[in-house]
Amino acid sequence: MEVPAGKYQSELYSRVRDPRLLSKVTAAEATIPLFRNGMYLGFSGFAEGHPKTVPALLADHVEHNNLVGRMRFNVFTGASIGSDVDNRWSRLRMIDRRWPFQQGDTIRLAINEGAVSFGDRHLSMFAQDFGYGFYTLENGGKIDIAIIEASCLTRDGAIVPTFAVGIVAELVARAEKIIIEINTRIPSFEGLHDCLSFAAPPNKSSYPIHRVQDRIGSTSIPCDPDKIVAIVESRKDPVARPLGPADETSEQIAAHVIDFLSHEVKCGRLPEHLLPLQSGVGTIANAVFGGLLHSPFTHLNVWTEVFQDTLMDLYDAGKLDHVSAASFSLSQQGLERLFGQWERYTKYTVIRPIQITNHPEPVRRLGLIAMNTPIEFDIYGQVNSSLVNGSYMLNGIGGSGEFMRNAYLSIMHTPSTRPTRTDPIGISCVVPMVSHVDHTEHDMDILVTEQGLADLRGLAPKDRARCIIDNCAHPEYRPILNDYLRRASRECLSKGRGHEPHLLHKVFKMQRNLERRGTMRISGWA
Amino acid sequence: MEVPAGKYQSELYSRVRDPRLLSKVTAAEATIPLFRNGMYLGFSGFAEGHPKTVPALLADHVEHNNLVGRMRFNVFTGASIGSDVDNRWSRLRMIDRRWPFQQGDTIRLAINEGAVSFGDRHLSMFAQDFGYGFYTLENGGKIDIAIIEASCLTRDGAIVPTFAVGIVAELVARAEKIIIEINTRIPSFEGLHDCLSFAAPPNKSSYPIHRVQDRIGSTSIPCDPDKIVAIVESRKDPVARPLGPADETSEQIAAHVIDFLSHEVKCGRLPEHLLPLQSGVGTIANAVFGGLLHSPFTHLNVWTEVFQDTLMDLYDAGKLDHVSAASFSLSQQGLERLFGQWERYTKYTVIRPIQITNHPEPVRRLGLIAMNTPIEFDIYGQVNSSLVNGSYMLNGIGGSGEFMRNAYLSIMHTPSTRPTRTDPIGISCVVPMVSHVDHTEHDMDILVTEQGLADLRGLAPKDRARCIIDNCAHPEYRPILNDYLRRASRECLSKGRGHEPHLLHKVFKMQRNLERRGTMRISGWA
Repeated sequence: MEVPAGKYQSELYSRVRDPRLLSKVTAAEATIPLFRNGMYLGFSGFAEGHPKTVPALLADHVEHNNLVGRMRFNVFTGASIGSDVDNRWSRLRMIDRRWPFQQGDTIRLAINEGAVSFGDRHLSMFAQDFGYGFYTLENGGKIDIAIIEASCLTRDGAIVPTFAVGIVAELVARAEKIIIEINTRIPSFEGLHDCLSFAAPPNKSSYPIHRVQDRIGSTSIPCDPDKIVAIVESRKDPVARPLGPADETSEQIAAHVIDFLSHEVKCGRLPEHLLPLQSGVGTIANAVFGGLLHSPFTHLNVWTEVFQDTLMDLYDAGKLDHVSAASFSLSQQGLERLFGQWERYTKYTVIRPIQITNHPEPVRRLGLIAMNTPIEFDIYGQVNSSLVNGSYMLNGIGGSGEFMRNAYLSIMHTPSTRPTRTDPIGISCVVPMVSHVDHTEHDMDILVTEQGLADLRGLAPKDRARCIIDNCAHPEYRPILNDYLRRASRECLSKGRGHEPHLLHKVFKMQRNLERRGTMRISGWA
Repeated sequence: MEVPAGKYQSELYSRVRDPRLLSKVTAAEATIPLFRNGMYLGFSGFAEGHPKTVPALLADHVEHNNLVGRMRFNVFTGASIGSDVDNRWSRLRMIDRRWPFQQGDTIRLAINEGAVSFGDRHLSMFAQDFGYGFYTLENGGKIDIAIIEASCLTRDGAIVPTFAVGIVAELVARAEKIIIEINTRIPSFEGLHDCLSFAAPPNKSSYPIHRVQDRIGSTSIPCDPDKIVAIVESRKDPVARPLGPADETSEQIAAHVIDFLSHEVKCGRLPEHLLPLQSGVGTIANAVFGGLLHSPFTHLNVWTEVFQDTLMDLYDAGKLDHVSAASFSLSQQGLERLFGQWERYTKYTVIRPIQITNHPEPVRRLGLIAMNTPIEFDIYGQVNSSLVNGSYMLNGIGGSGEFMRNAYLSIMHTPSTRPTRTDPIGISCVVPMVSHVDHTEHDMDILVTEQGLADLRGLAPKDRARCIIDNCAHPEYRPILNDYLRRASRECLSKGRGHEPHLLHKVFKMQRNLERRGTMRISGWA
């Protein structure tokens, strides 16, 4: 992708169409003096679409000028941004506070050692509350500087995003100063987005989306030109997401899911072409979409966060009618495929801000079939998506709670066990009580492991417990869980408090055994 | 309220305006042979508005014919129905399965002893999923008999509800047979409701409500006349809700809430006349509305579940512009006041089904200030609303989760302690970890006790913990909780897993001490 520098230059200017803004074009290095220790920063992006050039230069500045620990920022984004930023900034102690989601080994370490104040929240709720100023209370509700990766700026100075919209509208509303990174390394994404400006009650409008393809906004985000302090060129490639390998467990889970969907169609509870599908990222999600590729289902629609490689397979197979997503997040091969056949993969695709993609209003009206992968769930259907053993943060809840709460069918899928260093099935993903709750039993319809599928609809707690243990738990853990349920039921029912029986003094024994002995396989509950 | 029988008779016929339906008018006793053991029944109602005559006759039938335990039903309602039904039916072992909310000592006992299979779910989600047939899977998605209290039937045979709409539209869609109880003891509520028929995806419509008073439906619910098998007269009075006494703790909590709202207006984060208020039922809710009555706030709007007595005080004071509610639930005095000045209290009031009142779409768009009372919350902001000590069911979550998740400001208020038999502050409502989670830390903005108010917006977990302990915990429990936080932080941070520090082997020590010694006051965590 080597192109002469002159090409970049003219390409950059061709993407700044508002003549008022031309004078703001500058070298990226010129923005560095704008940054001060303690500032509140906002980044565009959601999995991709984050600024890559100014953050890297700022990190260089900190690294080369002995400023580690003396240039710390509060960083707000749409969701995960590239680990190039999160990891490097964490290593250079540039992140003080960070919301609402992250991915990266270094930042995770920093969070769990207490060096970064991280918080997670349902993504559309975060976007909204960030817009209301709730995350910047002590800064007068303001973001000091927003850095936004853009495809171009329109004649009216409106911002056309790249791979994702994220919280750009909210950033534009809250930022004192805005730096635009025009990414000339990639084609313009103009026309692909469906954006709304930010509004607060009592002036919020409806989202009249009745089909996945319905558009309700515009393809760019209006921006006060006076806020834009710099427009710089970015020549950074997008961050490719490695494709996870397929595995037998994921294939088995996908088979259970597709059997179930077929059954629901047969019973008249799902239409022939299903309802819009939402799926998290990862191996199981890929297996489910792979399964759909080889299933008899046609004319599928997808309403999800991340447009992954597998969706291109579905488009190619003529099985996919429309996609609405928050972001593209593709492998290197997938990126080349997207840019190589742009029209094919984008004609029926719309990219929206998380304010819309994750909002209960379209999710419930469209009636999604939502599928996500948790850390663990318990016998009554409480689900942990964020904190291992109650304390160790992985990435955050992201949008899982919004889909699980509001979908037509809420499906959580996970392998029944995970390995530890000493025991290949040392962790049971089915436990008596999850060590942290992100999604409640009031939100779950279906739980799936490679062992089978538990249909919890209409079941009371003790019936749910039997259904989950019988269908989802690994055979090694089934007797352990059944024994817990039996003991807890006996003790609680005899005392007249057995609606959802638990033995609080023993309930975390499996997790505790994992901490001390590297396996959840305990010898008993006595 | 004694009126000659002839009056009733003509009153009844005047309320059945569809001539096709006149032939279905019959004696309530004539419906009893329709009922069979194991049937799926649906009742209208939400706090009030439930059928009172046929259920009572059916209970008589069971009681007098030695059928106890041999006439058991699956009972589905909008929320709580009168304890006259729930308690008596439980005593006569007439309830097998019961969703989604209940109130009554006898049914609570039966649930916690395992005699009734109870399940709770977010109310608008329950209504929707009930409409989809998810609660009646093994009955072919059908309700065998729906019993609906009505004010009247229109010329087209549509049903005009009474005190509440509840899940009438969903019942009409799912029921094989419908029994209508025309309540002639109370005036007709015609004109007060805003009803929608039931629809499933992909055919669900928007709820274009932008102000509390906006109406989007009709004042009655269309019903297939062939489904109506009987129209009977009901002469039962509504069930009055006793007014809870005011107390100092509630007054202190209300004062904190009103101070906070005033502060938010001053900071420009709330409009001068606030945003629509939602409030649960009970003493604290009454105190908050009482506080608003004596505050400088005017032109208030309320979007809530239950229209309580205090709202009439606000109307009288000229401080209340509009109310949207799911139900009236009034004291005896309040009922007389409502019927005595019908126009005054209903002119700006609209009663809607829970499919609308609790739906995230209007709740988020309108931007509610939502206030509810939990059982307990923990230092990180997880909240328990349903299960005492993890196992003992009180009433169910009701609509609390829908308001807490979607409101503009999510406020949970509770006394900091509750008494046990042996210790006047034996229960701390602030604990290290709640014994059951109904609402997560990702949903809470503000926690309040009589001690003070914790503003959690934008805070990371360990900061939340300090804020909650300092502001909300009772002084007796503050050192205990601080000691837990210190120990948990030390241990987890040293192991690099301290995002939300917990000691799983000790975390329920306070609850465990309560079970064994009648108080949560422990001597230490060692």
